[in-house]
Amino acid sequence: MNRKELIEQIKQKRSFLCVGLDTDLQKVPRHLLAEEAPIFAFNKAIIDATAPYCVCYKPNLAFYEAAGVKGIVAFEKTVEYLKDNYPQHFIIADAKRGDIGNTSKMYARTFYVEYDVDALTVAPYMGEDSVTPFLEYEGKWVVLLALTSNKGSHDFQLTPAAANGADGVGERLFEKVMRVSQQWGNEDNMMYVVGATQGKMFQDIRRVAPRHFLLVPGVGAQGGSLEEVCQYGLTSDCGLLVNSSRGIIYASSGDDFAEAAQRASQELQTQMASILSAAGL
Amino acid sequence: MNRKELIEQIKQKRSFLCVGLDTDLQKVPRHLLAEEAPIFAFNKAIIDATAPYCVCYKPNLAFYEAAGVKGIVAFEKTVEYLKDNYPQHFIIADAKRGDIGNTSKMYARTFYVEYDVDALTVAPYMGEDSVTPFLEYEGKWVVLLALTSNKGSHDFQLTPAAANGADGVGERLFEKVMRVSQQWGNEDNMMYVVGATQGKMFQDIRRVAPRHFLLVPGVGAQGGSLEEVCQYGLTSDCGLLVNSSRGIIYASSGDDFAEAAQRASQELQTQMASILSAAGL
Repeated sequence: MNRKELIEQIKQKRSFLCVGLDTDLQKVPRHLLAEEAPIFAFNKAIIDATAPYCVCYKPNLAFYEAAGVKGIVAFEKTVEYLKDNYPQHFIIADAKRGDIGNTSKMYARTFYVEYDVDALTVAPYMGEDSVTPFLEYEGKWVVLLALTSNKGSHDFQLTPAAANGADGVGERLFEKVMRVSQQWGNEDNMMYVVGATQGKMFQDIRRVAPRHFLLVPGVGAQGGSLEEVCQYGLTSDCGLLVNSSRGIIYASSGDDFAEAAQRASQELQTQMASILSAAGL
Repeated sequence: MNRKELIEQIKQKRSFLCVGLDTDLQKVPRHLLAEEAPIFAFNKAIIDATAPYCVCYKPNLAFYEAAGVKGIVAFEKTVEYLKDNYPQHFIIADAKRGDIGNTSKMYARTFYVEYDVDALTVAPYMGEDSVTPFLEYEGKWVVLLALTSNKGSHDFQLTPAAANGADGVGERLFEKVMRVSQQWGNEDNMMYVVGATQGKMFQDIRRVAPRHFLLVPGVGAQGGSLEEVCQYGLTSDCGLLVNSSRGIIYASSGDDFAEAAQRASQELQTQMASILSAAGL
């Protein structure tokens, strides 16, 4: 899906919600465990319940790999189900890959050709040749880690660089990652991960990347505020995909999990619709 | 496998060679494609041929994920085969994982409990809570990316930090990663990835981490020099696991691939034996 189509979907749906499919067999309602493919059964119910209220799904590979071969099959089936039934939804494989060029090429082919998802989260530590193989596919996106939602984001991402040239004096690592990576990709094939827990830092983010889409995890279970994110992060094209995982998919652990997920996603969508309207979008 | 056992293996085998099982179906000899499980058949032949000359195997997950469910099965079977037949060999899953704590926990369980490998490569960008879940398993290791072998390692890993406190004035990002991560793990459960292509930088590495084991990719196809790595990187416990992937497993693309891999690994082992002897190990 390209940038124009994504923006179109956001405007039509009055939503920039991404539902994180972090499906953990330990947390799936008991009655589903009797199914042949419980992870997929759970995902299917969640997708059918939330699709009207979101524009994006983000399965995190950790949760599928944890279930071994069955988990990988569940991931494949989930992507297939989305593509067959909800082709307008953007799909991000949250896998945080990144390796030497030769190896990143393998990952890129896996996720963009074999699984055919729209986007993949990528870790920037290994630099240019670890990221560019993911930028060679038309209509596909890199979602590069910039300033993440977790406490550990302070350990390295905020390290200020020494004054060592015209560019980059005093910039922090996450700003350098965003500045330098704009030589590799552009607003049409690259997004950045910025945690909702980072609050006012969105102002700094928008200074470096005024128009790029940001994937924003951390609303809900991690404690980030949707209002604050939008106050500083919203652009004239929206420019945000705000993710909620646990707050939606585990809104109830009972038989009513799908209805509870529907309510939770609808609630966020209602807030998003107001925000978009207030911004004239 | 613990540190003492690993050092013991190195001394017995007169080798600190790690064979990278980056098995690509496109490069496997044609006749193997007729087998039911060609990736595993290739790995089994490579392992049987090289086991006397190495102390470690490192399958890179990218190559297994690329083959979908069959690839994951091949990875599982390879690890199982190693554990059943070569229990003295250290196994590193090269997956470069790392995510928020909740998610890293899932990856840790997958690799250390389900697959039961000895070590996992981990990316440091997301900081402490993305790494520490991998340190909670007795006898298991984190192999943290520090200074990688690829050209892109210059993009961020060499960024000098600004003078911002007593600690870390002027240190570069890879040095900060190594210094800070020593608050999370120790020489018994943490190694660092340092590319063989980094030459004299091993001196700087040893200043920050004088005794940690280093996993050193980049000898062979990537052009790193074993002599230079050892000149600056060797410790009184050896302290090195030097990896070669393509230079060994694709030493021949013909029916004699296993014999060629054996010769290539034996050649490296012979060099390593001299280096160890010269160092009085």
